Amino acid sequence: MTGPVHQTLEVGLGNRAYPIHIGPGILNAAELVPADLAHRDTLVVTNTTVAPLYLDKLICCLHGRRTETLLLPDGEQYKTLESFTRIIDRLAELAYHRDAVLIALGGGVIGDLTGFAAACYQRGIALVQVPTTLLAQVDAAVGGKTAVNHAAGKNLIGAFYQPRAVIADTATLATLSEREYRAGLAEVVKYGAGLDAGFFAWLESHSQKLVDRNAATLTEAVMRCCSIKAAIVAEDEREAGRRALLNLGHTFAHAIETGTGYGQWLHGEAVAVGIIMAAELSVRLGRLQQGDASRVRALLEAFGLPGQPPPIGARAMRELMAMDKKVSAGRLRLVLFDGLGASSMEADTPLDELAAVLAAAGSG
Amino acid sequence: MTGPVHQTLEVGLGNRAYPIHIGPGILNAAELVPADLAHRDTLVVTNTTVAPLYLDKLICCLHGRRTETLLLPDGEQYKTLESFTRIIDRLAELAYHRDAVLIALGGGVIGDLTGFAAACYQRGIALVQVPTTLLAQVDAAVGGKTAVNHAAGKNLIGAFYQPRAVIADTATLATLSEREYRAGLAEVVKYGAGLDAGFFAWLESHSQKLVDRNAATLTEAVMRCCSIKAAIVAEDEREAGRRALLNLGHTFAHAIETGTGYGQWLHGEAVAVGIIMAAELSVRLGRLQQGDASRVRALLEAFGLPGQPPPIGARAMRELMAMDKKVSAGRLRLVLFDGLGASSMEADTPLDELAAVLAAAGSG
Repeated sequence: MTGPVHQTLEVGLGNRAYPIHIGPGILNAAELVPADLAHRDTLVVTNTTVAPLYLDKLICCLHGRRTETLLLPDGEQYKTLESFTRIIDRLAELAYHRDAVLIALGGGVIGDLTGFAAACYQRGIALVQVPTTLLAQVDAAVGGKTAVNHAAGKNLIGAFYQPRAVIADTATLATLSEREYRAGLAEVVKYGAGLDAGFFAWLESHSQKLVDRNAATLTEAVMRCCSIKAAIVAEDEREAGRRALLNLGHTFAHAIETGTGYGQWLHGEAVAVGIIMAAELSVRLGRLQQGDASRVRALLEAFGLPGQPPPIGARAMRELMAMDKKVSAGRLRLVLFDGLGASSMEADTPLDELAAVLAAAGSG
Repeated sequence: MTGPVHQTLEVGLGNRAYPIHIGPGILNAAELVPADLAHRDTLVVTNTTVAPLYLDKLICCLHGRRTETLLLPDGEQYKTLESFTRIIDRLAELAYHRDAVLIALGGGVIGDLTGFAAACYQRGIALVQVPTTLLAQVDAAVGGKTAVNHAAGKNLIGAFYQPRAVIADTATLATLSEREYRAGLAEVVKYGAGLDAGFFAWLESHSQKLVDRNAATLTEAVMRCCSIKAAIVAEDEREAGRRALLNLGHTFAHAIETGTGYGQWLHGEAVAVGIIMAAELSVRLGRLQQGDASRVRALLEAFGLPGQPPPIGARAMRELMAMDKKVSAGRLRLVLFDGLGASSMEADTPLDELAAVLAAAGSG
């Protein structure tokens, strides 16, 4: 029996290398679960939105000694230490051991939370990511960043912990709400705008097909994003250098998410605004042409994403940005453009220029 | 100016290698803090017992940009996610960044807790261990195992996370309570009994000097334990093999600690009983001579350590042991003797023989 057609990338991390399987309808392709994990005690963590759609389909293909499920509520506001503790408590209650497997079925919140629980339970158990949102398929599920939020900052508590496999069924994207889907496109734009001018041009020419969720176009977009990310993660797993470029727009975005209260803005919506603000600051600093900044804004607008920050105030934004994980030795480090399709870390962002961008963006 | 005399071992972990400095009076030897950490934002975590004795002495030698302290209550019952959260909250409140340094000043509880917080805050910040108990100096502070307890099991939530340096001031052992000090000797005996017959014989011939806390003898004992542990950790950081031998007696011990309620038995006291029970089971299985088992018991008794488990019942003990992290594929894996000074992992412990040992030990 042959399963649905899919493509496989590898994240090259030596003895912790793992495959990313991408294709439509592969959610129940049992052979994609690594063979040594297939018959162990398994806990599937998902949320109340995803469960009715995909939980049965996933579970029917699993052959664990025991397969249990845990449903969490849906939303960024639940990406907390409390939810993490619920996963740990459930594993302990089931008396699962170090050879157990956690499967994260859902979007970035479920993936980050479940990944962090896998990193910490008994100091680390096996993890399989089954991302069902565009954002998770192109970004969150790949690369091993796991975390929960803290009132003082997004992703403040977490670990680098790689999954054993990522299974990205692109057919699941058909059921995403319009808002969730468009939010995921912001991360797609990030890869093109910040790292690959050719991919950016491809996105411009395929924007309508992407808005229409054309299956083949979508699968190609996910593949291209994952291959960019896999190469960067293989080179810089713990973000000592180049991996930080994947955070284009994210320092602004995290400030927006923290400042408005987790769950108000979707992460991707905040990233869209963050990319635009990074582009505007880059223009002010002579690192990006105005015409290219306009192309970035136009593509994000074509995807229906917001172009303005919420009215939380330029001063509050600056203070929230100062809590970012990329701050070092008291200086604000920001990923900025070096022309379209290229970026680098600015180690000492001029705060007056930043203030001007925040004020002009209307966040003040 | 020359500081106090000390010796230095290295834990050979490639680009994560780190020194263990051992000697009397080195608590305030500022030059032992790795140079690149010396001027960063620093948070010292300690407890209310250790703080009045050593906090000022340590802090006076630090030159961090900011040096703050956090005092936690003393005791195994505080090695919880709640205490972990207190450390994280304090770091966030101070707006400390990824370049901050955590210093753990205290025994195994402070070291494990602070180490786990260092592993998770912003996905990992620098950690220096300054152990002030014998147990922490010979075991907990070295090797990167960090954790907190869960009602269902000891050290159930944690991470492998190596410190940047360990500074073991053996002069601090003079102020330990008799009970704390003797508990630490159980871990010292573990190294000899399970891994090094020559060291076991040395312990027998120096037992009175150790009971008397002779400074030179103590420093040599700490050195020898740390060098055994450093070699094992360098070979098997994440306990895929040989490192598990450092858990001699610990499956019994964790069951005792969980079963009596954390904080009732000191970890080392439970380890002493665990080593004796492992010896008795090894005798029953023909892996250890009765005379050698008696030598193990005699040395632990000479150190004033308990030889009998608490009356929590053989059945409860077995159920608690079944939660151990070393359980795999439903089989109870136990470290057992292969003669005195040697040990190996028994992958499928005969449960009837285990039951006989538990019953004979009076835990039933």
